[in-house]
Amino acid sequence: MNVRGQPTRTIWVTGDVVQIIDQTALPHDFVVRPLRTMADAARAIATMQVRGAPLIGAAAAYGVWLAMRADPSDDGLKAACATLLATRPTAVNLRWALDTMAATLAPLPPDGRAAAARARAGALADEDVAVNRAIGDHALAVIRRLAEGRPPGKPLNVLTHCNAGWLATVDRGTALSGIYAAHDAGLPVHVWVDETRPRNQGAALTAWELGQHGVPHTLIVDNAGGHLMQRGRVDLVIVGTDRTTATGDVVNKIGTYLKALAAHDCGVPFYVAAPSSSIDWTIADGREVEIEQRAAGEVVALSGRSESGAIATVRLAPEGTPVANPGFDLTPARLVTGIITERGVGPATREGLATLFPAQAARSCA
Amino acid sequence: MNVRGQPTRTIWVTGDVVQIIDQTALPHDFVVRPLRTMADAARAIATMQVRGAPLIGAAAAYGVWLAMRADPSDDGLKAACATLLATRPTAVNLRWALDTMAATLAPLPPDGRAAAARARAGALADEDVAVNRAIGDHALAVIRRLAEGRPPGKPLNVLTHCNAGWLATVDRGTALSGIYAAHDAGLPVHVWVDETRPRNQGAALTAWELGQHGVPHTLIVDNAGGHLMQRGRVDLVIVGTDRTTATGDVVNKIGTYLKALAAHDCGVPFYVAAPSSSIDWTIADGREVEIEQRAAGEVVALSGRSESGAIATVRLAPEGTPVANPGFDLTPARLVTGIITERGVGPATREGLATLFPAQAARSCA
Repeated sequence: MNVRGQPTRTIWVTGDVVQIIDQTALPHDFVVRPLRTMADAARAIATMQVRGAPLIGAAAAYGVWLAMRADPSDDGLKAACATLLATRPTAVNLRWALDTMAATLAPLPPDGRAAAARARAGALADEDVAVNRAIGDHALAVIRRLAEGRPPGKPLNVLTHCNAGWLATVDRGTALSGIYAAHDAGLPVHVWVDETRPRNQGAALTAWELGQHGVPHTLIVDNAGGHLMQRGRVDLVIVGTDRTTATGDVVNKIGTYLKALAAHDCGVPFYVAAPSSSIDWTIADGREVEIEQRAAGEVVALSGRSESGAIATVRLAPEGTPVANPGFDLTPARLVTGIITERGVGPATREGLATLFPAQAARSCA
Repeated sequence: MNVRGQPTRTIWVTGDVVQIIDQTALPHDFVVRPLRTMADAARAIATMQVRGAPLIGAAAAYGVWLAMRADPSDDGLKAACATLLATRPTAVNLRWALDTMAATLAPLPPDGRAAAARARAGALADEDVAVNRAIGDHALAVIRRLAEGRPPGKPLNVLTHCNAGWLATVDRGTALSGIYAAHDAGLPVHVWVDETRPRNQGAALTAWELGQHGVPHTLIVDNAGGHLMQRGRVDLVIVGTDRTTATGDVVNKIGTYLKALAAHDCGVPFYVAAPSSSIDWTIADGREVEIEQRAAGEVVALSGRSESGAIATVRLAPEGTPVANPGFDLTPARLVTGIITERGVGPATREGLATLFPAQAARSCA
């Protein structure tokens, strides 16, 4: 997508250096940071300079390339994968990307591994973009259908939660892919951007990337979406997912469930953009998914640009206030209108997902 | 309620000076601020040093007393009421308190007005406390019923949104009144405190006042309540209300509707603490209530204590991000388990409210 008018990915290679956008500096500063060693890549993932499951996978793959340049031995490969895996141990795509890299490189002689790693990492990044583009095409069809019969020029209002945009991927995003496709096709869309407490990915990242690409949007607090739906000001909700079960239960950023309830109550279609890599075929009931508890500091303190221009952190709550900070919640399949995958849109049911992905479903839990 | 172990109201008189707790300094500093003139009182209301409908009413009444000391003429009375009314033109209790003061003082000779004003303002504050205490007694009965049969010592988990605590009133609060009553009676309760974006009244005020009084509580982001209800960790929701219709539709702080939906979906009782002064007998359908749109700055910037100890404001979103900031939403009566008033608990229906308040209901819209 565009940054300052230039098509930009979240990760790319210049010569022998991997370049990333440092997402911890957004929205205040646009900082491109070079990754020259595997340690640089591991640090970028661990400190969330890159985040979003698909992007973490790509960054880890490039990290293996950087490692192979320094030490392409079997031990070097094993150590690189172990170090990179430990950066964010719960991210599913991270393990998948590292397994893919190891499977490609292990059979090769060491002196061929660096070149092969670079090629495989690049292909993995390109595959992510292709998957997201396909999701965008299918989402665009949903948007076109909902926009039918509207007065010309009247935008379709789409609400999204968290950041499942291009910053969470290599390019185009998952939940936002269809919105970019519609905007680029001249179909007027307007996005309600949930702030997404506690990490504010909506206010910091989604608002920024939509603004850079020129997509009309409005920032709201997480509390406001229900009211807007009650007043008929939301035509469609699209969110991403961290893990979707084989039966269509959706685990996503905390607060997604509340928006799904409001959409259901107000008759607003609620779609989930889910690349097949985010579907967990081994789990049928979303209640079995363990919900990560995150640090209290995310809730009681907040960083931003101060009046002096510097980045500062301020504390909101009384000292010593006890905090709970669950990172995700479960949206039961019954509240989901449809799941948008790279192979098309299906109902949030075991049959719906199995029709789209018969091979994976056949290997899934009974 | 207690502050540093001492029973404290939010507004009181010492000699000839009205004293308030400056709520804009909370939770970081406990500042008692003297109001010596009507202008002081007007400024305290306008700048939200005092906030919460019942407390605004009491502060305005004391403001009339301060005005009468300086100029007890008819013109002085009229000017004081006009100035105080203009501070927060939408607050229902403000008009009611000023009408009450004017009706008491206008028939009196000017030289008797200051003393009468002081007495009437004090009575008005005491009446608020009595109403809230009655609400607390009725809420305590609800809490006792829900706590029946629980293992001894296992606390009842109550979720609340925004601040409808003693800081919003003269003392005891509305939604929190029953929680204080339970705690003081030795019934173990634990409160999930919604942060309440964008103004963070939960993190800044509710967490502070519960902490001062020693009530166990845990701060959560607004997004988290649904997840906690799904996991069976909430036994009861109690919120306040800015305006409840004659049919039991509840207008309250933005985000209340989302919690009501989750409570309904998860089978958690959802109660609204509503002094009769907050029931609008002239409106039957909550959708008729106009929802106040507030400033964008509340969403994109945030104040707190910085690492240096000073209070600082930081900006969260990209410069120029468009913002919508509706202040309230509507919880339809069908999602409300019961309305807790000073006269008891009734269902959120026209009949339920009319049984509690027959005289007011008889004058209401047909």
